[in-house]
Amino acid sequence: MSRAAGGVGRVAVVGLGLVGGSLTRLLAARGADVVATDTDPGTRSDARAVGLAVADDLGALCAAAPDLVVLAVPLRAVRATAAELAPLLTGADTTLTDVGSVKGPVRAAVRAAGLGDRYVGAHPMAGTEHSGFGASDAGLLDGAPWAVTVAEPGTAAAAEPARLAQVLRLVTGPLGGTAAVVTDDRHDEAAALVSHVPHVLATQLLNAVAGAPVRDLALGLAAGSFRDGTRVALTDPARTEAMVTENAAWVAPALRKAVRDLEVVIGALETNGSLHDVFHAADDVREERTGRARTGGPVERLSLAEGWTPRVVDELVSRGSAGSVVVGVDADAVHLRPPR
Amino acid sequence: MSRAAGGVGRVAVVGLGLVGGSLTRLLAARGADVVATDTDPGTRSDARAVGLAVADDLGALCAAAPDLVVLAVPLRAVRATAAELAPLLTGADTTLTDVGSVKGPVRAAVRAAGLGDRYVGAHPMAGTEHSGFGASDAGLLDGAPWAVTVAEPGTAAAAEPARLAQVLRLVTGPLGGTAAVVTDDRHDEAAALVSHVPHVLATQLLNAVAGAPVRDLALGLAAGSFRDGTRVALTDPARTEAMVTENAAWVAPALRKAVRDLEVVIGALETNGSLHDVFHAADDVREERTGRARTGGPVERLSLAEGWTPRVVDELVSRGSAGSVVVGVDADAVHLRPPR
Repeated sequence: MSRAAGGVGRVAVVGLGLVGGSLTRLLAARGADVVATDTDPGTRSDARAVGLAVADDLGALCAAAPDLVVLAVPLRAVRATAAELAPLLTGADTTLTDVGSVKGPVRAAVRAAGLGDRYVGAHPMAGTEHSGFGASDAGLLDGAPWAVTVAEPGTAAAAEPARLAQVLRLVTGPLGGTAAVVTDDRHDEAAALVSHVPHVLATQLLNAVAGAPVRDLALGLAAGSFRDGTRVALTDPARTEAMVTENAAWVAPALRKAVRDLEVVIGALETNGSLHDVFHAADDVREERTGRARTGGPVERLSLAEGWTPRVVDELVSRGSAGSVVVGVDADAVHLRPPR
Repeated sequence: MSRAAGGVGRVAVVGLGLVGGSLTRLLAARGADVVATDTDPGTRSDARAVGLAVADDLGALCAAAPDLVVLAVPLRAVRATAAELAPLLTGADTTLTDVGSVKGPVRAAVRAAGLGDRYVGAHPMAGTEHSGFGASDAGLLDGAPWAVTVAEPGTAAAAEPARLAQVLRLVTGPLGGTAAVVTDDRHDEAAALVSHVPHVLATQLLNAVAGAPVRDLALGLAAGSFRDGTRVALTDPARTEAMVTENAAWVAPALRKAVRDLEVVIGALETNGSLHDVFHAADDVREERTGRARTGGPVERLSLAEGWTPRVVDELVSRGSAGSVVVGVDADAVHLRPPR
């Protein structure tokens, strides 16, 4: 449960945008052995200027023989980057992970490049409305909740336990975060609900006001609920579009449900019907969130007495799906915090 | 344009909840002559304990001969409170205003009590997810953007210019705020877009996660977009229900538009269609908001050489509808800041 960088080996970060830059800065600040690269020469020189170790290209990055390669490129670039990376990853031990906001499509792209066996998915649940290395900050990912994902149980490339351990040590070690271990599908379904659908609704809110006859008045009157409700709509729209499109399989049904829910509200408003049930449906969550801070129960210990076996992976996925998160990994055990 | 309390006379605040309490605290802090009341004895004694002047009931409040009465009761209590207030407002000069989040229905309630001629609508665009006097704070409304509303031009009870002046002096004087002067309808349409629809969407987001099979995982992974997108759903759901229901005439069509917009997104996601136009529809607003702070042009001056005539009211409504806000009132002129 230490934040020391020991035990994670050499980390190579591909892409120095908001997330890749923040990740590299945080790892460097924690004393990890980290090297990064970016296709943009200006970005590379900006990163060198703040003291980061930067390789000129993927070849130079892989020549540094990293233990872990983190893909931090835009979703639309994952397939091409993975293909370019494949012949360069000659060391059998190098594990590949990423920071993408969808996991099933990234695994498919990585498999297409022949790197499926090396891959463990990862997604930090943190971001800002800004983009690029200039907006990156060591604090952005410090202590973030991550999802760390494996393929569906029983599929050919089930997570290699040792590779999962490597990524969990990175997240809960120098990055100071927590990790929910789940399958790609579970992740993508949950991410649709807590990230992609919110982005679509925020975009709709912003579009509706931007196109309204009362636009100037409305923008002048806009206070907290509109500011909060549209903040993520101010992020790079191309990035949002990619995120939403890549996860269409989960976002579309979640939006269908949103439409049905809104039609219930409209029906009640147009017939003087009661909205009581709509506004009280989530009272239990509301009470949890407005009450004392959400703290989990006591940390539990999953023994590693038999090492990182497939059984350990299954157990982590089962607990992760139920809301437990990994908070630390040591030689003897994985430490998990159960949901509140 | 001074923040001094002079010139606003004695202000009486009915209701010491979040907004009424914050209003009373701010007016007192600015040295205004303010007295308040609340139906709850505990709230009255809490308010007295922090040094505010508190009357025991509406009778005692009105006996203090206020120049301006501010209704700060819940929307569902406006009708009954106005009826109780009517026989007590014996001074012909007393003006009535409020802080309600919808304006047409409040004017209807006030008219039903025979107080329509005294009434100028007002709505501060500020709030928190908390309620009650305990959550009130002088800072909440300090400098807030307000809407100040008049009836439709030509209706029987068109705003008495002197009463409008009184409310504008209060808002831009000791409250340090700005005021968009508009009709009730314009306000209610804009408020549906920037406040009521965001509340409904936030509630839907929260409900969808609360009812999802992946609920615990989703709540564990929830980061900025979900937190921001649901913040206002954590407010008192009964208050939100009242606000949305009272403004049904504007909220229902705005939600119908939201449904149509979401169906476009769903259609594109299900057919691999492009979402480019959806995600770029509000690029102009996005640029304004992410660029330098939104500052208006130079402050303009609307002469009061002929006094507070109906023409001045019409001019303020016309400019308010176009996005200009009143930033100050003095003996010679109304000062307005045009939209950016």
